[in-house]
Amino acid sequence: MTDKSSNQMWGGRFAAGPDAIMEAINASIGFDQRMAAQDIAGSRAHAAMLAKAGIITDKDAEAIREGLLTVLSEIDSGKFNFSAALEDIHMNVEARLKEIIGEPAGRLHTGRSRNDQVATDFKLWVRDQMDAAIAGIEALMKALVAQAEAGADWVMPGFTHLQTAQPVTWGHHMLAYVEMLARDRSRFVDARKRMNESPLGAAALAGTSFPIDRHMTAEALGFDRPAANSLDAVSDRDFALDFLSASSICAIHLSRLSEELVIWSSAQFRFVTLSDRFSTGSSIMPQKKNPDAAELIRAKIGRIFGANTALTIVMKGLPLAYSKDMQEDKEQTFDAADSLMLALAAMEGMVKDMSANRDSLEAAAGSGFSTATDLADWLVRALNMPFRDAHHVTGTLVAMAESRGCDLPDLTLEDMKSVHEHITEDVFGVLGVHNSVASRTSYGGTAPSEVRKQVARWKDLLG
Amino acid sequence: MTDKSSNQMWGGRFAAGPDAIMEAINASIGFDQRMAAQDIAGSRAHAAMLAKAGIITDKDAEAIREGLLTVLSEIDSGKFNFSAALEDIHMNVEARLKEIIGEPAGRLHTGRSRNDQVATDFKLWVRDQMDAAIAGIEALMKALVAQAEAGADWVMPGFTHLQTAQPVTWGHHMLAYVEMLARDRSRFVDARKRMNESPLGAAALAGTSFPIDRHMTAEALGFDRPAANSLDAVSDRDFALDFLSASSICAIHLSRLSEELVIWSSAQFRFVTLSDRFSTGSSIMPQKKNPDAAELIRAKIGRIFGANTALTIVMKGLPLAYSKDMQEDKEQTFDAADSLMLALAAMEGMVKDMSANRDSLEAAAGSGFSTATDLADWLVRALNMPFRDAHHVTGTLVAMAESRGCDLPDLTLEDMKSVHEHITEDVFGVLGVHNSVASRTSYGGTAPSEVRKQVARWKDLLG
Amino acid sequence: MTDKSSNQMWGGRFAAGPDAIMEAINASIGFDQRMAAQDIAGSRAHAAMLAKAGIITDKDAEAIREGLLTVLSEIDSGKFNFSAALEDIHMNVEARLKEIIGEPAGRLHTGRSRNDQVATDFKLWVRDQMDAAIAGIEALMKALVAQAEAGADWVMPGFTHLQTAQPVTWGHHMLAYVEMLARDRSRFVDARKRMNESPLGAAALAGTSFPIDRHMTAEALGFDRPAANSLDAVSDRDFALDFLSASSICAIHLSRLSEELVIWSSAQFRFVTLSDRFSTGSSIMPQKKNPDAAELIRAKIGRIFGANTALTIVMKGLPLAYSKDMQEDKEQTFDAADSLMLALAAMEGMVKDMSANRDSLEAAAGSGFSTATDLADWLVRALNMPFRDAHHVTGTLVAMAESRGCDLPDLTLEDMKSVHEHITEDVFGVLGVHNSVASRTSYGGTAPSEVRKQVARWKDLLG
Amino acid sequence: MTDKSSNQMWGGRFAAGPDAIMEAINASIGFDQRMAAQDIAGSRAHAAMLAKAGIITDKDAEAIREGLLTVLSEIDSGKFNFSAALEDIHMNVEARLKEIIGEPAGRLHTGRSRNDQVATDFKLWVRDQMDAAIAGIEALMKALVAQAEAGADWVMPGFTHLQTAQPVTWGHHMLAYVEMLARDRSRFVDARKRMNESPLGAAALAGTSFPIDRHMTAEALGFDRPAANSLDAVSDRDFALDFLSASSICAIHLSRLSEELVIWSSAQFRFVTLSDRFSTGSSIMPQKKNPDAAELIRAKIGRIFGANTALTIVMKGLPLAYSKDMQEDKEQTFDAADSLMLALAAMEGMVKDMSANRDSLEAAAGSGFSTATDLADWLVRALNMPFRDAHHVTGTLVAMAESRGCDLPDLTLEDMKSVHEHITEDVFGVLGVHNSVASRTSYGGTAPSEVRKQVARWKDLLG
Repeated sequence: MTDKSSNQMWGGRFAAGPDAIMEAINASIGFDQRMAAQDIAGSRAHAAMLAKAGIITDKDAEAIREGLLTVLSEIDSGKFNFSAALEDIHMNVEARLKEIIGEPAGRLHTGRSRNDQVATDFKLWVRDQMDAAIAGIEALMKALVAQAEAGADWVMPGFTHLQTAQPVTWGHHMLAYVEMLARDRSRFVDARKRMNESPLGAAALAGTSFPIDRHMTAEALGFDRPAANSLDAVSDRDFALDFLSASSICAIHLSRLSEELVIWSSAQFRFVTLSDRFSTGSSIMPQKKNPDAAELIRAKIGRIFGANTALTIVMKGLPLAYSKDMQEDKEQTFDAADSLMLALAAMEGMVKDMSANRDSLEAAAGSGFSTATDLADWLVRALNMPFRDAHHVTGTLVAMAESRGCDLPDLTLEDMKSVHEHITEDVFGVLGVHNSVASRTSYGGTAPSEVRKQVARWKDLLG
Repeated sequence: MTDKSSNQMWGGRFAAGPDAIMEAINASIGFDQRMAAQDIAGSRAHAAMLAKAGIITDKDAEAIREGLLTVLSEIDSGKFNFSAALEDIHMNVEARLKEIIGEPAGRLHTGRSRNDQVATDFKLWVRDQMDAAIAGIEALMKALVAQAEAGADWVMPGFTHLQTAQPVTWGHHMLAYVEMLARDRSRFVDARKRMNESPLGAAALAGTSFPIDRHMTAEALGFDRPAANSLDAVSDRDFALDFLSASSICAIHLSRLSEELVIWSSAQFRFVTLSDRFSTGSSIMPQKKNPDAAELIRAKIGRIFGANTALTIVMKGLPLAYSKDMQEDKEQTFDAADSLMLALAAMEGMVKDMSANRDSLEAAAGSGFSTATDLADWLVRALNMPFRDAHHVTGTLVAMAESRGCDLPDLTLEDMKSVHEHITEDVFGVLGVHNSVASRTSYGGTAPSEVRKQVARWKDLLG
Repeated sequence: MTDKSSNQMWGGRFAAGPDAIMEAINASIGFDQRMAAQDIAGSRAHAAMLAKAGIITDKDAEAIREGLLTVLSEIDSGKFNFSAALEDIHMNVEARLKEIIGEPAGRLHTGRSRNDQVATDFKLWVRDQMDAAIAGIEALMKALVAQAEAGADWVMPGFTHLQTAQPVTWGHHMLAYVEMLARDRSRFVDARKRMNESPLGAAALAGTSFPIDRHMTAEALGFDRPAANSLDAVSDRDFALDFLSASSICAIHLSRLSEELVIWSSAQFRFVTLSDRFSTGSSIMPQKKNPDAAELIRAKIGRIFGANTALTIVMKGLPLAYSKDMQEDKEQTFDAADSLMLALAAMEGMVKDMSANRDSLEAAAGSGFSTATDLADWLVRALNMPFRDAHHVTGTLVAMAESRGCDLPDLTLEDMKSVHEHITEDVFGVLGVHNSVASRTSYGGTAPSEVRKQVARWKDLLG
Repeated sequence: MTDKSSNQMWGGRFAAGPDAIMEAINASIGFDQRMAAQDIAGSRAHAAMLAKAGIITDKDAEAIREGLLTVLSEIDSGKFNFSAALEDIHMNVEARLKEIIGEPAGRLHTGRSRNDQVATDFKLWVRDQMDAAIAGIEALMKALVAQAEAGADWVMPGFTHLQTAQPVTWGHHMLAYVEMLARDRSRFVDARKRMNESPLGAAALAGTSFPIDRHMTAEALGFDRPAANSLDAVSDRDFALDFLSASSICAIHLSRLSEELVIWSSAQFRFVTLSDRFSTGSSIMPQKKNPDAAELIRAKIGRIFGANTALTIVMKGLPLAYSKDMQEDKEQTFDAADSLMLALAAMEGMVKDMSANRDSLEAAAGSGFSTATDLADWLVRALNMPFRDAHHVTGTLVAMAESRGCDLPDLTLEDMKSVHEHITEDVFGVLGVHNSVASRTSYGGTAPSEVRKQVARWKDLLG
């Protein structure tokens, strides 16, 4: 492409001139219309309070209430005409309200400002997403608990470095993710509590001289209390950062499970079969099942943490109270919320539908001398050897088995005694994978008995 | 530099060959020695439990305890010889213990593994940092509350877009940061609770067949309970991510205050004077005070959020349970913790030492028709005008004042009446900056009376 | 919100079930339709090559060419019906082509696959953006050079730590950004060269057994050559990362200039006046000019670097060749490109429109003993004092002036001699701000003569 | 930990008071001493120029030169006493120089300032790292080319979605990384050219009135020219951002190869065997080889991109020219450089040492109907079927083979004809994996003949 044509393209894109550029960079109605319901809820609460406090008449308040309901229904039914010239959702709603009810619309904005209004709307929107995240996490936890219950005693390899380390149970592995998700849920619960203070009435930044009742609007909107400092109330975006931080950690967990599903679905592992609904095929290789959903979920941490990065950079070094930079908060948060909810739903669906291949799992669990630790522990327990010495004896026996191309249980007692004379027949009781997992009964261990206890605890907690 | 010499440099750097490269990339003793105290505390708790559970003898447990205390005192006094060949702090301590007490040292590792050991050590270290962050935040909050108390009624400009919007009070501005820091504190408090589960006894990943008592070691180490899934216990680094997330948001707040201090210290603003202790001079311009500490604090969000990014990338997509990638968790967390603590301490010192220049603040507060909103509110309140109409009238009066080169209070009543005939003498009561701030008595507003209430609340809460 | 309702919301959002979830997470047509022109250009080049190589008939190729032109015109005119069931732009175009021309459409995909097709389309799209970025950068450079030319000798403070350090010229300051932008341009130019290799014909990942001519399609699409490894060709997203990296650094530069414009627009600085077109007012304070565009540009580095972070996280640790994770590459890149182009256009507009307030600049330049360095340099030059000693003498004189509340040129020769007896009348020749800047004639220095040389150089280079 | 003790700890950490805190946050000597050689080189070039320009005497210049060489040898031999009170490497060197040579040391700083000095030193340091990165990349490319040459015709599965898609050759897979690394090298080469302008002589920010010759110092230090704007020269950190961006993309490539090595080393894949030198064992499972080095390299993208994030955040929104925030540039860059060089060296060692398991690779390559595409292509080529129809026929045959539990070549000609009657005996010529790869002779394809051409090209280019 020549310089000439790229300049033309450049020119073409912004041919409409400065005003078009300013509108393009400044207007937020393209995205903040998603907060319409929150905006109207906030205005209704504000109007009711203004009337109660005697700042506007009951009649005006009633007109405002009715008018706002009309606007809401226009928006819900797709009839509303959003105007970029009116810049944002707040002015769009107010302008339409004025068309519908006339003069009283001009009294709605008494004792508030666009700064506290946008903070309130956005908080309400994010709070809804926190609730949705909690619900989505719980749904996924239940799907995992169901898998854990079904496979409390199915053995599979426990990996470190993607190398078989010790046998574990399928249920135990599923429950590991339940623990992670429980922490994710707790993060959203904590964040929701921390953010649940109402900015409404902070006005532009200094509060107001109207005798407003911020406790009343706070309560009407489900907030625990009004925010205690009006400067902070309009300049605070911690709640979005909290949402993005919690979403990021949750998305890390989802990416870890996705990675496992991708690896487990490979021809080399064959640990699970994903359902057709969450994989895609190939017109030419009908047997192929590409784990597309798992890969897409694995990728979502990218855009979620990307949004976290973006908002952190935006907020860094901003002086109080409101700077227009902060308008960049919403699209990032919207996109991250959509991504998280979609990833949770897709993962829940995949986990519900997937089938563990018990034979592959069990075969893999027994390979690689995976019960060597059980042998060493037996030496410590039965023969009172120091742990480090027991490891040495075990290593010698594993080397012996490897050189013979057999597994540990295939060695004879004589073989064993040739390495350490006090080993007895009892040792074979700990060498099979089922024996191995059954023995690991320490709290939180992989034994089916422990797994069933945890399954019961979670079923109880999740209702 | 020629290719030849750059190749030589390259060669030179890694001349020692593969073994040196592997040691360089693999060994962690260079940094994980910071967890020595935590490692020894964990081992002491484990040994005491092993004896109580009858897994080792009381005599061995006593030898281990004494030996570990000796190792700790060697480390504390700087006499300990850390060895890179022994890779990490855990092997360094155990090897030295063996030198001191001999055979019983080999029994210490019964029923645990390096995986749960490192998770325990690192958790204890991070937990200490959460406590330190909470203490540092509270110290800074107190310094800000003291500033707020002193200047509850000093007027200054409240900015939006770095343009004067309305007068506020110094105390109100200081308290905005107290609110932010209170949320920061709450984040660390929540994270501390969430992470306070003991990994010890999770062993390599599957739990153990030894009859260990994980509740006992958990209690001894100050944990609320043992972690309920051994796979999760060794693969979890959420606590570090939580620490980094909370630290990142806190560092954003510190960067915002720093930005203000840098701007406020400029010759053009002169809102504050920083103490010599937290600024640097110039040999040639002795009057100059560079706000170095504020700039350095402003920058700390970079490396703290950088660490957050780093650990998120590391953990993304890791299959369970332990992968060596996770060894990259510590240096990032150590560095972020050091940066946060230093930034909090430096900010506390700066805030304590700084002097507000009341005259500059007040002069700036009154400029730019900053009480226009007060005028508009008066029109609504006194004349019952709709808010939007009142704004229009006010705009006309501001334009009039501007064209005359005077301020709003300098207009005559006649001037006022020429725009709206019902305006009365009373209007002048709201036009001064002191009147303005005094009137904003809504909850959380900038009025000195409200500021004093909040100061009292915080003094009570912070003790 | 109760658990019940949040669960309902959760359920409601994904009520359509697994298939809807899978379509939502899997389909890309919602965003990749932006690559329609590139997709059709790629297909036309491929079809022409297939005919030339004798793989399809000329008649089929002609039908395909005509059909594709029809599809393109349908898309351009908004008549095209995009179908989510067909997942992506490639299938949408091919399906429509089949409707139009029938059987020959089935021959178009010979010797290629969706993997090389998507890589080709996306590369062409990104390459266009690189050209647009280069054009946008050059337009902004010209605007800055025009400012520099107008104000080659206007004096203003040169800041370090936002404290006046030495006088500089407006032209010099503007040219600093020209240098930054020149590096930005060079980054895009380099990246464009590096990425200009054609993936087309890499097929799924292994190349093909059809006798295709990859050099021919490469040339037709403006590529310098075909990519030399088919596995790499379909798994490579470096070009997007390069675009995001270059855009990030460019956005840092824009954020720095924006920060200056915000500070310079404050009532305290009053260094510049932004035009009404790139600022917003207040209905109530008509004199107010909020630098909204500057703030929004300052924020764009957030989402641009956020996109960089997102794609880095996505690509990290992906095995070859294609994983579905990579579908997350486009939305991030599209958004970053839109943000960068908008920021460049808005900045160009602002720079063109803004007026420097020469009086404020000059007054500020002279304050704070900003010519102390000139005094010290004179002592070195005229009296042959060592640099460090000259600094000491200067510091004493500044302290004297400060204590008298006057500036350096206001001290008498006697005052000067009282500190160092060899000082002569000549010293006053270097103390004014105009003298100061005029003297700094080292290459790249702030002297108007040097600034004019650089302006001439840039005007020549930019054409 | 009680509040009391955490407060004590907090207090303890910063007990030394404000001065200790300021020193801790302000001093850079702890890390910038790594630039000692660069600092001394810069000073030597500056002194020589000052003498040539007649600004200092030849005698002083000679004393300075000799003194600096003494200082350098003291540093190199570890005898130098770094002092935190002197803050940074520049003051440490100058102070020691003064001790050694006395008064002439005070003349060295004529016509420069700490701002251009630190920019020069840091640029020289980063430039050396760019050279080292280029050398390290080339060394790794050679190791990969050697693997490619050895295994130009070894067949292995080509994966999409970690599912076998088509057979490829080992050499082809190795060369994919050579292409990536070639782009990495090109990024460092471009960045090196872009940054190779000398800041020396920009002085504090405005240039100087001394008749210095910036071209002379630039040339002496290997720069292509002096930087053309002194404000930009001291405020520019693009070169570090360029280094971090290029390092990040390179580290992504290394993480992708590492991921493959980890997966390929698993018991389920067994595609490669890593050498003992780059894996770690288990005392208890001597057969185990944990791919520690691959995992650690995979993780390095975290800290490298973390550093990129950190510096981006630091630089965002900084006004010109120098702010102390910029002191946070070095530690991040140092750490990222160390990480990259170590990762490159470890990867080179691993690639040199690793053995491909040809039998496992070939067995895996043939499974999963991996030559289905070859069959479809044959149908198009031999029978002139449209591509989409050929896919349909092939899918039917694959389904037939799958239902019989056999592979495609195991179907009889009759089986084939039952699906499409025109299929001939010739079809079997394309169904084996060796036939498959041999047929993909399109430019850049996987055919051994193409791989050997590329190997020859790279051997030629890499010398």
